[in-house]
Amino acid sequence: MLSVAEALVAILKETRVLPVERRSVAESLGAILAETTFSDVDSPPFTKALMDGYALRAEDCQTLPATLRVIEEIRAGRVPSLPVKTGEATRIMTGAPVPEGADTVVMVERTEAIPPTGVRIIGPIKKNQNILDRASEMKAGEAILAAGVRLSPQDLGLLAAIGYADVAVHAQPRVAVLSTGDEVVEAPAKPGPGQIRNSNGPMLMGQSSRAGATARYLGIARDQIEELKAKIEDGLNNSNVLILSGGVSAGKFDLVPDVLRDAGVVSHFHKVAMKPGKPLFFGTKESTLVFGLPGNPVSSFVAFELFIRPALAKQQGEREPGPRRVMLPIAADMQSDSDRPTYWPGRIEDSTSGFFVRALPYFGSADLRALHSANALLVLPPGPVAWRAGEAVPVIVLNT
Amino acid sequence: MLSVAEALVAILKETRVLPVERRSVAESLGAILAETTFSDVDSPPFTKALMDGYALRAEDCQTLPATLRVIEEIRAGRVPSLPVKTGEATRIMTGAPVPEGADTVVMVERTEAIPPTGVRIIGPIKKNQNILDRASEMKAGEAILAAGVRLSPQDLGLLAAIGYADVAVHAQPRVAVLSTGDEVVEAPAKPGPGQIRNSNGPMLMGQSSRAGATARYLGIARDQIEELKAKIEDGLNNSNVLILSGGVSAGKFDLVPDVLRDAGVVSHFHKVAMKPGKPLFFGTKESTLVFGLPGNPVSSFVAFELFIRPALAKQQGEREPGPRRVMLPIAADMQSDSDRPTYWPGRIEDSTSGFFVRALPYFGSADLRALHSANALLVLPPGPVAWRAGEAVPVIVLNT
Repeated sequence: MLSVAEALVAILKETRVLPVERRSVAESLGAILAETTFSDVDSPPFTKALMDGYALRAEDCQTLPATLRVIEEIRAGRVPSLPVKTGEATRIMTGAPVPEGADTVVMVERTEAIPPTGVRIIGPIKKNQNILDRASEMKAGEAILAAGVRLSPQDLGLLAAIGYADVAVHAQPRVAVLSTGDEVVEAPAKPGPGQIRNSNGPMLMGQSSRAGATARYLGIARDQIEELKAKIEDGLNNSNVLILSGGVSAGKFDLVPDVLRDAGVVSHFHKVAMKPGKPLFFGTKESTLVFGLPGNPVSSFVAFELFIRPALAKQQGEREPGPRRVMLPIAADMQSDSDRPTYWPGRIEDSTSGFFVRALPYFGSADLRALHSANALLVLPPGPVAWRAGEAVPVIVLNT
Repeated sequence: MLSVAEALVAILKETRVLPVERRSVAESLGAILAETTFSDVDSPPFTKALMDGYALRAEDCQTLPATLRVIEEIRAGRVPSLPVKTGEATRIMTGAPVPEGADTVVMVERTEAIPPTGVRIIGPIKKNQNILDRASEMKAGEAILAAGVRLSPQDLGLLAAIGYADVAVHAQPRVAVLSTGDEVVEAPAKPGPGQIRNSNGPMLMGQSSRAGATARYLGIARDQIEELKAKIEDGLNNSNVLILSGGVSAGKFDLVPDVLRDAGVVSHFHKVAMKPGKPLFFGTKESTLVFGLPGNPVSSFVAFELFIRPALAKQQGEREPGPRRVMLPIAADMQSDSDRPTYWPGRIEDSTSGFFVRALPYFGSADLRALHSANALLVLPPGPVAWRAGEAVPVIVLNT
């Protein structure tokens, strides 16, 4: 049986990065940049004052107080017309361009105006003080955001600032979700004996959206070859990822693999050593990835986070597709002893000294309620585990 | 001048929670629940086995090994047909219903089959072991998700599991973003002397989306009464929040307040004691909120996170609209001394012992590039601050 790490390697090996398209910056939130972007401007575009006060030459103020002649007043949004020469100063506002010749801005609180055209500098002053040099934030021609960056709201602003109205980004993956099994009923229908409600459908749709994909729901396929075949082919033909969510009845497990094989899906593996979620099918048809998830909702949820989310991230062009594992202090003692690595619902909370993680009460792989408060999964290694409260333990942070 | 806390109180006092609508569960990701939801089923629906093995009566195994008669085999997806009586056992699979009369499941590894119909229990066993009682996760009639919950993917699954095909959620706020000023140019146009590129437009649109709103961009209004008036009225009539992003020129500041007043907008305040972003206009027209943000992009970004995001959260029905402040150890020493509380771009990173925050290099309120890596804002109180590396400091976590 494959380990979790081996299964992820096998999946990412088959995962192709999606094509690049140009999209307007305004519509690129959350997309992954497929080009390195360069600034076409210096920022700031001129050497600018960081305080309201007087622009002057520091050498004129070696003995203080010093009296200077005020040659001009630059208001915000205006530009200086005169250079500052020895013995001169220019009245300046925050954000205005510093005139040629001046090397320092002294804040107004350290000066006294001498009407009509003089100023007394009381100081103390330091050369180059309260000035931001031209291009100190960004230089024209400099690389700013690199390919692989997932675009945040501030990145959209930054792209606009450096001159981009549209950018090259990777396409959004298209996911299709198919529930299978005669025993699955759609809410609000009430499940009879041996039936279960389809909770995986809406959950997997939501997880796909959160992972940056567009999700399409194919409904429930009954345990009947023609129906299963039609829905699987629809999913294969129009998606980058097809997710099959199985029930628990043994009979169906015979049907789905046959239909997949007939549809041209190559099987790569169908079991991973982990808890919950041991049965996990992975196959491909050309570049379309096919995942068959176990019926239990927590198993499905965890398998999506460990395997499908990284595949979707790679399709979108992410360089480190995850899952991201961090170390966090645990709130209370925790013991386990399992033959397989175990993923346990957890909640990251904050205290006066930082973040910690709490293991949530959890009855097993059908206990979807335990996931409500979960924003993390604790990663328990196989074999005997005895964590002490306060010890840093491995955690996968969920993006829910 | 108002403090940050006073400004937020003033804003939230004017903020109305948006109306409730019914939406299909599949389309409710990220929406906030407006009703308390109840389960219509027990979960699990029957007392179930948590291991493959034998269901039996613990009293029959007081002395071990014990030999029992196997009366039935229940496969996954099947239901038991016979109660377990004294001296009897039923072969059972994980997930199957435990037959009446049995109180314990012993795992198959602790047994030996005695063909054709016997089993030897080697033990040790514990009464009630490996059994999950009916309704131990959820009881029919029990309240499950309460009003005020922001729906995650797993919540959608949970709602379907308890019988909801649609739910009552609060409407999504409609935000309109209007940039103003003759000096503002749209990328890719190159800014001339005294001009700046419109980076705030796309950034504020992105921030609004991330905050759960639908955002509409009204373009740039020139410093001309009729144009400003038409765009402001469009924004006021069709939005829950109108965001005006100003430039820096002094002339415009005379025009916008007049047009807002003529359009019926009541001014509440126009300055907040904070850095960056001291000028901040807040007004209302009936239940529509109007924010006038400073032109500098970092000031705009911070003002959105501190004031507009909480207002949007309250409109959506969130009970604790934020901003959420946590304490995190800081990576390096940091000093400051300002008359106003200061919000400084930071990055939360992880180490082998947990999360910490790093103050990012930052040139001031025009330095949008500093925000690229930011996923947090450090909150520096006014007056002299001298933080030591490792000390827990206040941080606002960004959702970007």
